[in-house]
Amino acid sequence: MPDQALNPSCENHANKPPAVILLSGGLDSSTVLAMAQRQGFACHTLAFDYGQRHRNELDACTHIASSMNAASHRIFNLDIGSFGGSALTADIEVPKDREESNMTDIPITYVPARNLVFLSIALAYAETLGSTDLFIGANAIDYSGYPDCRPEFIASFNETANLATKLGVGGNTISVHTPLLEMTKAQIIQVGTELGVDYSMTHSCYDPSPSGGACGRCDSCILRRAGFEQAGIKDPTNYA
Amino acid sequence: MPDQALNPSCENHANKPPAVILLSGGLDSSTVLAMAQRQGFACHTLAFDYGQRHRNELDACTHIASSMNAASHRIFNLDIGSFGGSALTADIEVPKDREESNMTDIPITYVPARNLVFLSIALAYAETLGSTDLFIGANAIDYSGYPDCRPEFIASFNETANLATKLGVGGNTISVHTPLLEMTKAQIIQVGTELGVDYSMTHSCYDPSPSGGACGRCDSCILRRAGFEQAGIKDPTNYA
Repeated sequence: MPDQALNPSCENHANKPPAVILLSGGLDSSTVLAMAQRQGFACHTLAFDYGQRHRNELDACTHIASSMNAASHRIFNLDIGSFGGSALTADIEVPKDREESNMTDIPITYVPARNLVFLSIALAYAETLGSTDLFIGANAIDYSGYPDCRPEFIASFNETANLATKLGVGGNTISVHTPLLEMTKAQIIQVGTELGVDYSMTHSCYDPSPSGGACGRCDSCILRRAGFEQAGIKDPTNYA
Repeated sequence: MPDQALNPSCENHANKPPAVILLSGGLDSSTVLAMAQRQGFACHTLAFDYGQRHRNELDACTHIASSMNAASHRIFNLDIGSFGGSALTADIEVPKDREESNMTDIPITYVPARNLVFLSIALAYAETLGSTDLFIGANAIDYSGYPDCRPEFIASFNETANLATKLGVGGNTISVHTPLLEMTKAQIIQVGTELGVDYSMTHSCYDPSPSGGACGRCDSCILRRAGFEQAGIKDPTNYA
């Protein structure tokens, strides 16, 4: 497992409380990283190599963690992709040109129990760091209809996390932070831009071209493009 | 990931509802497998290679799954051991000769958020199998004081599981079965013996000798040995 101690000396991360930030390489989690840093946390970013079909997002994660001065960055190997059942991990075509209004159906890009698995491992990692704070860029407004992005899932997971761990049982309160949960994509882009996030580093497309260009037609591209338009901010995405 | 289709033809597993059984190679999970089979499930066993210091339990899992005619067996690689923080995965001495009455303290053999991570991945696997039933040998009576073996954790996880998945949101009810939760070790051994479990195949020791013999002195050995004594059943364990 690559574990990079990024800029351990030039920034005094040691005086800040540690937090674990789930990083996907996309627009949302990069914004969450900036928000957690603004809140004063030493941010330990965690990305998952879960058998996704393209590696662009893992490369983006590493670039973002380094550029945004994360306290450390880990890529965790997790072979849930081998279970199959999703267009993001199996050889199933990514849907294109869906209407935003139809995105409340759970699409084939859903990965079984992904956020639950990611958050559970992030919690295990946090516990070894002595951290009670997890950040995830879940969003229940401009999203693809995944059940594990909904507020009721996050709240239930947070409750379970406090019962699952020595840290929780020991009188500490674990907090699962979802600062984007009720924000539109445009609002997220506005906040991130104010915090200095360079969105040209981020990768959202579910089905990029071999050269890494975004397709512009999958759910993720459609939501991203509309977000920049609504925010009135220039979209730095390289569309293929 | 090894994925063994065990006896796919000689037993008609296809007509039974599928269930995922977490298998650790120990006494409890083997008994749970027998109980789930008795209930009529096609049992897909799932073991984790999570960086535990000794491999005996994974070998035991494979042997048990095959001998007990599981529908399939998987070993899932999961590098939570690299996070450290437990005597079961890091180079920390396993405690010996603890009094059973003191085992309510959480010991150093606790692995951060282990059952939450295991159950989350089991749920992802179950969802791809179209299964709504998970079985885990958690026990809150004769146990080592781990927070993630308590009934309140299991109940909370079950609730989260139904919110986390397409399966749960789709009107199905996911059930996390913990048939051993309120049983003593002696009762577990009695039930398993009635169901024909061969406990000589199972491995419980946290700190086996190089030849695989059980130490007889770690928490797990102490609880196991006392269980056989109380059940009045001959202990088949090979103590080093």
